[in-house]
Amino acid sequence: MMTTTHTALAHVAPASIAAPRSISIFGATGSVGASTLDLVRLDPGAYRVVALTAQTQATELAALAREFSAEVAVIGDPAQHQALAAALAGTKTQVWSGPQGLLDAADLDADWTMAAIVGCAGLAPIMRSLLRGRCVALANKEALVSAGALMIEAAHTSGATLLPVDSEHNAIFQCLAGGRIDEVESITLTASGGPFRQWTLDQMRVAGPEQAVAHPNWSMGAKISVDSATMFNKGLELIEAHHLFPVGLENIRILVHPQSVIHSMVEYRDRSTLAQLGAPDMRIPIASALGWPRRIVTNCAPLDLATIGQLTFEPLDDVRFPGPGICRAAIAAGGGAPAILNAANEIAVSAFLGKRIGFLDIAAIVSQVLARYSPSAPQSLQDVLGIDAEARAEARCIIEAKD
Amino acid sequence: MMTTTHTALAHVAPASIAAPRSISIFGATGSVGASTLDLVRLDPGAYRVVALTAQTQATELAALAREFSAEVAVIGDPAQHQALAAALAGTKTQVWSGPQGLLDAADLDADWTMAAIVGCAGLAPIMRSLLRGRCVALANKEALVSAGALMIEAAHTSGATLLPVDSEHNAIFQCLAGGRIDEVESITLTASGGPFRQWTLDQMRVAGPEQAVAHPNWSMGAKISVDSATMFNKGLELIEAHHLFPVGLENIRILVHPQSVIHSMVEYRDRSTLAQLGAPDMRIPIASALGWPRRIVTNCAPLDLATIGQLTFEPLDDVRFPGPGICRAAIAAGGGAPAILNAANEIAVSAFLGKRIGFLDIAAIVSQVLARYSPSAPQSLQDVLGIDAEARAEARCIIEAKD
Repeated sequence: MMTTTHTALAHVAPASIAAPRSISIFGATGSVGASTLDLVRLDPGAYRVVALTAQTQATELAALAREFSAEVAVIGDPAQHQALAAALAGTKTQVWSGPQGLLDAADLDADWTMAAIVGCAGLAPIMRSLLRGRCVALANKEALVSAGALMIEAAHTSGATLLPVDSEHNAIFQCLAGGRIDEVESITLTASGGPFRQWTLDQMRVAGPEQAVAHPNWSMGAKISVDSATMFNKGLELIEAHHLFPVGLENIRILVHPQSVIHSMVEYRDRSTLAQLGAPDMRIPIASALGWPRRIVTNCAPLDLATIGQLTFEPLDDVRFPGPGICRAAIAAGGGAPAILNAANEIAVSAFLGKRIGFLDIAAIVSQVLARYSPSAPQSLQDVLGIDAEARAEARCIIEAKD
Repeated sequence: MMTTTHTALAHVAPASIAAPRSISIFGATGSVGASTLDLVRLDPGAYRVVALTAQTQATELAALAREFSAEVAVIGDPAQHQALAAALAGTKTQVWSGPQGLLDAADLDADWTMAAIVGCAGLAPIMRSLLRGRCVALANKEALVSAGALMIEAAHTSGATLLPVDSEHNAIFQCLAGGRIDEVESITLTASGGPFRQWTLDQMRVAGPEQAVAHPNWSMGAKISVDSATMFNKGLELIEAHHLFPVGLENIRILVHPQSVIHSMVEYRDRSTLAQLGAPDMRIPIASALGWPRRIVTNCAPLDLATIGQLTFEPLDDVRFPGPGICRAAIAAGGGAPAILNAANEIAVSAFLGKRIGFLDIAAIVSQVLARYSPSAPQSLQDVLGIDAEARAEARCIIEAKD
C-alpha cells in the first residue's frame, strides 16, 4: 500500500503548489467571499491576493483590501468609486469600478479565482475568467443555471478548470477524484427537504415567508431559503450538476436526507458508492476548492457521527414539491428554458417574500412562464441576459394579473 | 468541469488496461475466489487466467480450471495431486501441487493476483508475489496481521501494489483515490457491532457458538463470525489498516454502524470526509480491486438508501468489547505481538466453537498469551511462523489448564 498511497495516488496531486498562490475573489464581502478569506487568514503566507471585488459595500471592501494587501479592489457600483478610493488612500491598492472594472479584474493573472458574485451580475466576469483559461471556483448558481452550456463550452475551449463550491457539487467533485465520469452509474444530490419537509399541501398553501426562511440546517439568505422550502434550490442544483457532470439527466437523482451530513454521492458502475460528508459549514467545500488538488488545513469542526447518531433518507415527494420536476423538464426542453425558469423563480420568490403571492404559487408561476414561450438556445451572454429580462417581465405580468 | 472530469481526473486512470488482463487466483474455491470468478464470468474475454489454486478441493478446482482454461492448476495438498491430474486429463492445464507448487505459481507472470488463501498457508505465496512486484489484491487477513511489516517492506522494495479487498480497507482505499495519505486527518473503520452489540456482559458470559455465529449483515464462516461477535475482527482490521494506511495509530478509529452500509471513511485535514457505501456483497470490493484503476461493470444490487431509510452510529463500548483495545495495544507493543494475538485468538475461537471455553474467555486468553512473552520483531516469514506456532501452543496450554 505504500506503493498505492504514495505512488499511484500521487498522480492527481502535484507534490507542491507554488506558494504563494495568487488568488482573486469576486464577491469578497458576501458570505462565500468572507468564508474564503477566513481560510486565507489561517495561512496568509500561502496566498497573494490579486483582486477583491464587491458590488456596493465600499467600506467593507476597503478594509479587506487593506488587510490582505490586495493589488486591486473593484467596486461594481460606479457611484461608490470615490468612497472606495478615499478609504484606500495611502495604500498600493489600485481602485477600479463598474462592469468594466470587474472584467479588467478577471483579465488579471491569478492562479485561482473565486466566483461568488450573486446573480446575473456575476455572469460576465465568470465568463471572462473561463475564457482566460483560469482555475475558477464557482459559487454563483445563476451562472450554470442560465448559461451552463456557454460556460462549459468556454472552459472546454480555453482549458479552464471549474471547481464547484456548492456543497453538493463539491461533494460530487470530490467523489469523482480518482474516478472517471464514464464509469459513473449515477449521481445522487442529497436534499435536506427544507422547512416544509413534513408539511401537508394544505399547510404549505398558507405558509408565509417567516416559516419558509427557517431552514433547519444551513444559515442562508432569504431567497435561497425560500428556494430550499420549495425545493427549487435542489432543482437548480440538478441543472448545475447536469452541466458539470455529464452522466445523463436520468442518472442524476435527488434523495431527501434531513440531516445534511452526506452532501452528495457518486455511484460507480461496479456498485461502489462514494459519498462526501461534513458539518454544514460552507468553509469545508470552499477549502476543498481553495486547496485543490491538495488539501489545506482548516479549523472547521470535525464530523462526529457517534454524537449525531443517525442519518435518515426518504424519497422526494414530487406532489408536494414540484420544483425539481419542473427543473428536470426545463433541462430536457433545453435552449433557454433553464434561464427562463431561473428568472421566473427569482421574481416569484420575491413576490412571495413581499406577501403578494402564496407559497404554492411560486411553482405555478414558474410553470406558467415556462409554458408561455420557448426561445432558441442562447448563443451569447447577451442572449442569456435578454431571455432573463423577458422572463422576469413575463413573471411580473402574471403576478400583477393575480393581484 | 469537462476539464476536471476529463483531464484532471484521468491522471489516475490509464485510458485503457491491456485486454485480456492476465490474472491468478490463490484460493479459487473459497468464497472470495468464487466471487472473483463470478465477476470474470461477466466479461470472460477481458481476462486470461494464468493460475488457479485450492488447498484440498481437487474436483472443484478442476472444474474451474476447465471452465476458465487456466494455464496452471495448483492443489496445496500434495495427496490430491493425482486426483487433480486425472480430473484435468485431456486439457492443456498444467497440474502442480504442494507448497512449492504454490510458490511456483506465484512466480508466473500475471497482471493481477488475488491472494485469498485463508490463514498462514497463504503467507508464503503472497510474499512471493509481492517480491515479484505484482499487483496483489489481498483478501487474506492473517498476512498483514502477522507479517504486516515484512509484507509492506517487500512491496516497497519491489514496487508491488497492494489492493485491499476487505470491505473496510477497500473502502478506505477508494476514499484515498485522488488524495494523499499525508493530508489525511483520520480514518474510521465502521463495525456492525456483531450479534452481541446490544447484549449485556452477563448475557455474553453464557453465549454459545450458535448465538455468536448469527451475524446480522454478512454471511461468513464460523471463525470470522465469532471474531465479529467479540469484535476482534475489527481489531484485526485495525492492525491491517495500520500497515496499509500509515496515518498514525491514534488516527485510526472504530465506529459502530449496525447497518454496514458505510464500509469505512477517510477524514481529510480540511474536514471533508469521504465514505464508501454499498450493499453487503463482497463482490463489490472485489470488483473494485479487479478493475483498479478502472471500474468494471458488475451485476451487484444498487444501494437504495431511501428504502434502507436510516443509518445509525454509536461509539464502541470497550468494556463489553475489549478485543479492539487489545489489538491496539498489540500494535503499540510491536514486534511479534500482533502475530501472537492472531494465533492465540484462533485457538481461543476454536476452543469456544468446541464449547471448551466461554465467550468472554476468548479475550481473556488472548490477553494472557500476549502477557506471557514478547519475542523480538520477526525478521522473516520463518520467524512469523515460529511465533505463530509458539503462541498457539501457549494458548492451548492455558485452555487445557482451564478444563
